[in-house]
Amino acid sequence: MTASSSSIESGAYVHPSALCESDSIGDGTRIWAYAHIMPGAVIGRDCNICDQVFVEGGARIGARVTVKNQVMVWDGVTVEDDAFLGPGMIFTNDLHPRSARLPEVADRYRRTENWLVPTTVGRGASIGAGAVVLCGVTIGPYAMIGAGAVVIANVPAHGLFVGHPAKAIGWVCGCGTRLDSALCCPTCGQRHTCRDDRLELA
Amino acid sequence: MTASSSSIESGAYVHPSALCESDSIGDGTRIWAYAHIMPGAVIGRDCNICDQVFVEGGARIGARVTVKNQVMVWDGVTVEDDAFLGPGMIFTNDLHPRSARLPEVADRYRRTENWLVPTTVGRGASIGAGAVVLCGVTIGPYAMIGAGAVVIANVPAHGLFVGHPAKAIGWVCGCGTRLDSALCCPTCGQRHTCRDDRLELA
Amino acid sequence: MTASSSSIESGAYVHPSALCESDSIGDGTRIWAYAHIMPGAVIGRDCNICDQVFVEGGARIGARVTVKNQVMVWDGVTVEDDAFLGPGMIFTNDLHPRSARLPEVADRYRRTENWLVPTTVGRGASIGAGAVVLCGVTIGPYAMIGAGAVVIANVPAHGLFVGHPAKAIGWVCGCGTRLDSALCCPTCGQRHTCRDDRLELA
Repeated sequence: MTASSSSIESGAYVHPSALCESDSIGDGTRIWAYAHIMPGAVIGRDCNICDQVFVEGGARIGARVTVKNQVMVWDGVTVEDDAFLGPGMIFTNDLHPRSARLPEVADRYRRTENWLVPTTVGRGASIGAGAVVLCGVTIGPYAMIGAGAVVIANVPAHGLFVGHPAKAIGWVCGCGTRLDSALCCPTCGQRHTCRDDRLELA
Repeated sequence: MTASSSSIESGAYVHPSALCESDSIGDGTRIWAYAHIMPGAVIGRDCNICDQVFVEGGARIGARVTVKNQVMVWDGVTVEDDAFLGPGMIFTNDLHPRSARLPEVADRYRRTENWLVPTTVGRGASIGAGAVVLCGVTIGPYAMIGAGAVVIANVPAHGLFVGHPAKAIGWVCGCGTRLDSALCCPTCGQRHTCRDDRLELA
Repeated sequence: MTASSSSIESGAYVHPSALCESDSIGDGTRIWAYAHIMPGAVIGRDCNICDQVFVEGGARIGARVTVKNQVMVWDGVTVEDDAFLGPGMIFTNDLHPRSARLPEVADRYRRTENWLVPTTVGRGASIGAGAVVLCGVTIGPYAMIGAGAVVIANVPAHGLFVGHPAKAIGWVCGCGTRLDSALCCPTCGQRHTCRDDRLELA
């Protein structure tokens, strides 16, 4: 494919093979090959939106977020600053989907509020490659979801969740390292305390 | 990317960035960005074929089907009317694949009937985001497969299956709502009966 | 989309909608629609690189490999000759990823050796559709990974692994058939012996 044109919007870079139909892309954000940003999508500054990513109108992505290849961010999904969405991870926004032209559900799909269920990924959280996140879930700040995990319930801040369904196996530091049994980070030395199943900086 | 041309066939809409090489696309069907429909693929009317979908020659898709982003529909897969294929769900058509140019399997891949195993998704069924469906399986009408499930055996009509491997956890109505213990739908009121592990309208 | 140009390099075929930025593609290799091969990627001869595949600089793919649609092959991943990478299977190359612009990890992402963890897929191995392979893993020659499996540890040569996490359930022949309890292949008759949990041709 020849690079025949490039849409540069407000200091963002858009690869010539990508389609960017939103005018709400922050400065310094890069949108790579075959990505498709729909009208009404909001993306903050200094994000890296990799190949084949799809961002739907109504989706909100903060600043400095990394969205790896093939991730689809639907209407109803909010991704806060500095989050990492691993390659091929999957969001949903409907808890019991049907084809909208099926007669039995024509009424349901007439109004968005009948079916749309929101999802939030907190600041600095990481979602592993190929993970699936059911809608209605909130993933807390700095949480880490293992590759291939299927998340069906809320994940607390700094929580490390893996498996199908995803379950807690520990805690991670803001820097991404798993905390030791004293809730100290072996990499950066940050100490934490846990009260009422919530992790806080010590 | 500049929209340099658009193939409109028999009343279907094809996005300028998509590739539609089939002449069997029903009226009213929409094919979105970066989708690729191969020669010999058959798609019925009023379908919604979303971004980056791939439909191979030999695949058959009925009418009013929703095929969400990135779904790949292979030769050997039949999707009946009104079905919903969630984003990133994955079909297969070979139970023990090898690279076809490996000397040990050159004979096997010489004839399609040596390796191709068909799969059917019944009318009105829904397959959740990121689910994997092994070939040889029949998913019954109005069944619902949870997001991220791995389906390795047949699913009965109206069956609700989740997990890895996917197991039955209940029944769903044609409208998509989970039935209560009396097999009545809390949303639309439809009653059902179960005999010999098969669900029928009451 | 009109086919406006085609990059043919050293006897390889590149679909007009694909982007091939590497000059290390072997003769006879075919690269299909919307695929993206980055500068510095190395691909051997007679490979089949299907639609929407992404191969990053630093990735190495041998000869006669089949890379099905949507597979992403990252820096740090080596795929040996004759392997099969099923549709939508996912590699990783970082065990605890964060968005690289998060202040807490700025140092870590300054040098590749701080975070890149390699993965190897052995000669003639097969990875099923939608499987997830954690980095740091070696998948032995002729192994077979089931569709949807999540591989978190090494897989021996000829091993048949399925599930989440993936576990051994048997052995497969070079031709792809599961071996019987006498370690003989019902399809091609090849006999094997097992010593110290390693399979060898008899």
